[in-house]
Amino acid sequence: MTVLSGKEVVAAIKSKLSEDVAALKEKGINPTLAIVRVGEREDDLSYEKGATTRCKGVGIEIKKFVFPVDVPQEELIKTIKQINEDSSIHGVLIFRPLPKTIDDNAVREALAPEKDVDGITDKSMTGVYSGNGMGYAPCTPSACMAILDHYGIDLTGKNVVVVGRSLVVGKPLAMMLIQKNATVTVCHTRTRDMEKITSAADILVVAAGKAGMIGAKHVSSGQIVIDVGINVTEEGKLTGDVKYDEVSAIVDAITPVPGGVGTVTNSILAKHVVEAAQKL
Amino acid sequence: MTVLSGKEVVAAIKSKLSEDVAALKEKGINPTLAIVRVGEREDDLSYEKGATTRCKGVGIEIKKFVFPVDVPQEELIKTIKQINEDSSIHGVLIFRPLPKTIDDNAVREALAPEKDVDGITDKSMTGVYSGNGMGYAPCTPSACMAILDHYGIDLTGKNVVVVGRSLVVGKPLAMMLIQKNATVTVCHTRTRDMEKITSAADILVVAAGKAGMIGAKHVSSGQIVIDVGINVTEEGKLTGDVKYDEVSAIVDAITPVPGGVGTVTNSILAKHVVEAAQKL
Repeated sequence: MTVLSGKEVVAAIKSKLSEDVAALKEKGINPTLAIVRVGEREDDLSYEKGATTRCKGVGIEIKKFVFPVDVPQEELIKTIKQINEDSSIHGVLIFRPLPKTIDDNAVREALAPEKDVDGITDKSMTGVYSGNGMGYAPCTPSACMAILDHYGIDLTGKNVVVVGRSLVVGKPLAMMLIQKNATVTVCHTRTRDMEKITSAADILVVAAGKAGMIGAKHVSSGQIVIDVGINVTEEGKLTGDVKYDEVSAIVDAITPVPGGVGTVTNSILAKHVVEAAQKL
Repeated sequence: MTVLSGKEVVAAIKSKLSEDVAALKEKGINPTLAIVRVGEREDDLSYEKGATTRCKGVGIEIKKFVFPVDVPQEELIKTIKQINEDSSIHGVLIFRPLPKTIDDNAVREALAPEKDVDGITDKSMTGVYSGNGMGYAPCTPSACMAILDHYGIDLTGKNVVVVGRSLVVGKPLAMMLIQKNATVTVCHTRTRDMEKITSAADILVVAAGKAGMIGAKHVSSGQIVIDVGINVTEEGKLTGDVKYDEVSAIVDAITPVPGGVGTVTNSILAKHVVEAAQKL
């Protein structure tokens, strides 16, 4: 059984990005990520901390724009437009979901597509959906693809089952897998015979957001399992959507949680910021 | 065995649209579709003829903008912008693929999303991909959904296999089916064990663009088959992607070609034009 360690992928991306950032700095360009956060949600703070460390680790600068939960929509949008105009900023991460008082579509539309390193604009979504190469894919599904790529797993003709149909993971991942010639099945809460479908996959990607929902009965020998879930147990421990102990005893390869997809996500964000700076 | 006749669906849509158009005309609104065509491709001319008849049949007016194959890109885009500004036009159909001298993305971006009744703009694509209800879905996958809906086929929890991953049919259809709670598998030219996968489906939708590629060995009893293919035989006859005679002898229900999905597509176009006029 192979553990598909995210750390290895992170190290490889870091090495490449450090070189790219050094080259940009020689040209007088300081790759910079703006983080826009409304409120103090724990999830957001945790992701922000990780992203900041990872970005700084390769020489990317961070500018934070933090608002109280009751910020008026106009003020938030005004800031985003200022960021669009600010040539010292190359990428923008906006934490979502936003408070219900704010129209998510208005915020997405305000963002300049060329700075949309988290893939939330219509242009980025069309890019992933159509495979036309425009914009940026969301970071988490890109992290899954980076892991598969790093470990030399060819997708052509493989039966890949994706559990989850969210716009941040399931759907973009399905599109990216199809683009790489995989035969893709998307399962979700309304799927019948889930065990039968997941067991028949060559590669199983679980992005359901439900701790331990995939166990021994869902898998079979020879499979590769990518666990996108990041759930917090009552004891405060991180755990995936897959029961690691029982599944890892059966399958050929699996990503751990923590130390799997989640850890690569920040590296993809940093990679997108560098790409945005290079495109200037 | 049930023949899922497109004509029945067309009749139902026509009846509803005729009422809607009459109501609009009472308010002084004449629902109008602009058709933009470059060159004289036979496919385009045939589709144009069908769409024109269907639209006029419910009282929708047609304005044609026809250009020679060597039209400069600026001229085409200038016309699209004039159409955007023209309040007497509610929907636009642009025949594609355009000649290689013209940048498809520039043309798509020039079109006002609110007149994009054929679902080619980023906003329409994001609408289908994300399920956020914005814009218009492409007409052919919408026609498939209309047939399934007309015949009362519930999709929740069904295993639906889509053969084809194009941006005009396969991908949007997969998204629309997922939105309706189906478990969806997308197959394509690189899929292995196609027969095994298609035979296991509850509903099989074939949009491969390859005459007769699905035969008896690909299907099983109890299935519903939707044939999106419109191919022309050497004798000039229309034929689907499914071998109708041998497949219809096995499955529970099937759409014929001609008289199936293709015939409903024009009705969806007309429906979108009426919706665009209603939204004014």
